[in-house]
Amino acid sequence: MTADGFGFRLDADDGVARAGTLSTAHGPVETPVFMPVGTAGTVKAMTADSVRATGARLVLGNTYHLMLRPGAERIARLGGLHRFMNWPGPILTDSGGFQVMSLAKLRKIDADGVTFQSHIDGSSHRLTPARSMAIQHLLDATITMALDECTPFPATPDQARASMELSMRWARLSRDGFVSRPGYGLFGIVQGSVYPALRAASAAALSDIGFDGYAIGGLAVGEGQAEMFAVLDYTVPLLPADRPRYLMGVGTPDDLIGAVHRGIDMFDCVMPTRAGRTARAFTSIGIFNLRNARFADDGGPLDPACACPCCGNHSRAYLHHLFKAEEMLGPMLLTWHNVQYYQDLMRGLRRAIQNGGFAAHADQLRSGWTAREEIA
Amino acid sequence: MTADGFGFRLDADDGVARAGTLSTAHGPVETPVFMPVGTAGTVKAMTADSVRATGARLVLGNTYHLMLRPGAERIARLGGLHRFMNWPGPILTDSGGFQVMSLAKLRKIDADGVTFQSHIDGSSHRLTPARSMAIQHLLDATITMALDECTPFPATPDQARASMELSMRWARLSRDGFVSRPGYGLFGIVQGSVYPALRAASAAALSDIGFDGYAIGGLAVGEGQAEMFAVLDYTVPLLPADRPRYLMGVGTPDDLIGAVHRGIDMFDCVMPTRAGRTARAFTSIGIFNLRNARFADDGGPLDPACACPCCGNHSRAYLHHLFKAEEMLGPMLLTWHNVQYYQDLMRGLRRAIQNGGFAAHADQLRSGWTAREEIA
Repeated sequence: MTADGFGFRLDADDGVARAGTLSTAHGPVETPVFMPVGTAGTVKAMTADSVRATGARLVLGNTYHLMLRPGAERIARLGGLHRFMNWPGPILTDSGGFQVMSLAKLRKIDADGVTFQSHIDGSSHRLTPARSMAIQHLLDATITMALDECTPFPATPDQARASMELSMRWARLSRDGFVSRPGYGLFGIVQGSVYPALRAASAAALSDIGFDGYAIGGLAVGEGQAEMFAVLDYTVPLLPADRPRYLMGVGTPDDLIGAVHRGIDMFDCVMPTRAGRTARAFTSIGIFNLRNARFADDGGPLDPACACPCCGNHSRAYLHHLFKAEEMLGPMLLTWHNVQYYQDLMRGLRRAIQNGGFAAHADQLRSGWTAREEIA
Repeated sequence: MTADGFGFRLDADDGVARAGTLSTAHGPVETPVFMPVGTAGTVKAMTADSVRATGARLVLGNTYHLMLRPGAERIARLGGLHRFMNWPGPILTDSGGFQVMSLAKLRKIDADGVTFQSHIDGSSHRLTPARSMAIQHLLDATITMALDECTPFPATPDQARASMELSMRWARLSRDGFVSRPGYGLFGIVQGSVYPALRAASAAALSDIGFDGYAIGGLAVGEGQAEMFAVLDYTVPLLPADRPRYLMGVGTPDDLIGAVHRGIDMFDCVMPTRAGRTARAFTSIGIFNLRNARFADDGGPLDPACACPCCGNHSRAYLHHLFKAEEMLGPMLLTWHNVQYYQDLMRGLRRAIQNGGFAAHADQLRSGWTAREEIA
C-alpha cells in the first residue's frame, strides 16, 4: 500500500507467478485479473450488472473513444465514467495513444504529442501527455495510463529506440501532469519492441520516474506468442516487484496462462467480447464456432463446466440457431459466457498459485482443450 | 375452465373491460395481457430471464419463422419450443398465415392452403390448416392459432367475403387437425375486414365450430385507430363471453387502453421491441426518441416512474450515447424498458378494472403523456 491509498499487496507466489490484491478508491481487485474491455462506456453486448455477475471487478475504458464521443468534459458533468456506465468498481483507462495510431485519420506525431482527425466525424484533436492526464482525470479513472507510442512491429532497433525514448519523455510528462488522489494510480508503460537492451532501458527509466504500476506495451501486435513470452522472460524481472504488472492487449486463454506463469498480474483484451459477437466460444473443452452446422441438433450445454446463464439455460443448438438467424441474443449470450470463462480462468489461476499448484493446474487446463483444433 | 384443463375465468369487469385468468398447461396468465413477440424463438435483444423479470407470463412465437429455421421437427427433437428458448411458461404461436403473406416469396393460395418460397433460402413449402396444426403441435404451443388468411386492407366487400369464407373453411379444418391435450387451447380468428355483416358471419361460424378463445384478425393493417375501435365495438359483443378475446398485432399503449375498454383480453405486437431497437421509448410521460440531441446532457432517468434496470441504472444521456455509438446495449436496455412499460401498463389496467376505476385510470395514463407530440 503506497502512502496515497492506492496499493498492491502480494498474497502468494508460485515460482514467478503471483497472486495479489490491488487496493483502490473504488474497491479491491484480486490478481491475476482480466479486465473486460468497455471501449465506449459499455462492455459490448452486456449490462454492467451481468459483467459484475461474472466476477469481474475491474474494467477498461478507452480514452480515445470516450474523448471523441460523448466527450470527457460531458462525462465529467454527468458525474464521471463510473456513474455514466453504472460501474461503481475500479476502472482503468488507456491513454488514447494506441487507438490514435490504429483508428484515427491524418495523424501527425511530434515530440510533444499527436494531432489527428476523429474517425467518426473528421474533427481535429490533439493529444499530449498533459491532455491525456486531464481527460483520464475528467473520466475519473481509477487507474490512469501514461501516454505512450505503441511501437509498431516489426521495427528496426533505431526505430524502436526512437519510439521508446519518445514514450519515456511522455511518461515523465504524464507523471508531471497526473493529479494524485487517494486510491487512484498512474501506470507507466515499458516499450522497446523485441530488443532486450531497449526494454531494459525503458524499465529503468520508468522505475526512476516512479509509477504505481508497470505495463508492458508494444506486444500482441504480430510478434507471435513465443516472441512475446521471450520479451516477458527478460522484461518482467526488471520491474519493481512490489508493484502490479500489466500486459496490455493480451490475449488467448493460453497467452494468459503463459504470461501469469511469467509474473504478469493484469490483462485486458477485446478477444472474449469480440469472439462472442462472432459466434466463437472459449470453453473448458476448447474453442467452438457456434455457426458450425454440427451444432444444429446438439441439445447439450455449451460448456458443461460453466455456471453462466448461457450454459445453464440454453443448448448449443439454440445458440447455433440464434447466430444463423442473426438474433442479438446470440452475441449477448456468447459474450456473457466468454467473459465468464475468462473470469473463471483467472480465479482458477489465482487459487492454483495460492495452493502452490500453478504448473499442474495450467497443464490440466491446456489438456482439457481437446476441441482446440476442430474449429478454424 | 373447459373440460380439457385449458380455461378462462372472469375475475372482474368494469363496463365492457374485464380482468380474467387463463389456465394453461404451463401456468396461469392474468388478463388483460400483452404478449412480447419472440419471433424466431427469442424476444429480440432480451434473455428469457429478463422477459420474465418484467412480469410477462405469456410470449408469442412465429410458426412461419420457426418452421423455416430451425424447423419444427428439429425443435420437437430438442424438447419443444419451451425448452428450446428457455421459456417454461405458456407460449402462443400464430398460424404462419400472416407472415406467409407479408414475408414469403412466390406465394400461391388455393382452397386448401398456400404454397410459398422461403424468404431465407428460396426453398418451397406448403402450409395447410392440417400442417399448421402439426407444426404448432411439434413446437408444443400452449395456445395454437387456426390458420387464416389475413384479409388485406382495403378490400371490397366481395374480396373481404371470399377471404373470410376461406378463413372459416380453414378454421374448421384447423379444429379437425388440432390434437387436444389437457391445458392446451386452440383459438379461432374472426375476419371480415371493416364490414359488420362479415364480422358477424365470421363470429357466428367460429362459435359454431367452437374454440377455446377467439381472436380478431385483419386489423392494425392500415385502417386507423378509429376504424379499428369501430370494428371492436360491433364485433366483441358477438364473441362468447366466457372465452378470452385476442386482438392480433396491436398496438400502441393508447390502442391497448382503447381495446381493453372495448372488452379485449389479449394482445401481441412487435411495437415495444422494435421501437426499443430503434431508440424509441414508451414512458409514463410520453414517447421519446433517444437519438434526439437534447438528451446528450440529460442525467435523469428515462422514466422516473419505472423500476426496470434501464431506468434504475442509467441516464438518458447514457442511452443517447449508446445509440449514437451504435452499441448493442442501447437496444438491449430500451427493449427491456419498453417491454417493462407494456407489462406495467397491462397490470395497471387489470388493477383498475378490479377496483372499478378503469375510465379514471385510463384518463390519468393518457394525460401523463405530455411528451407525446415532441418526437416525430
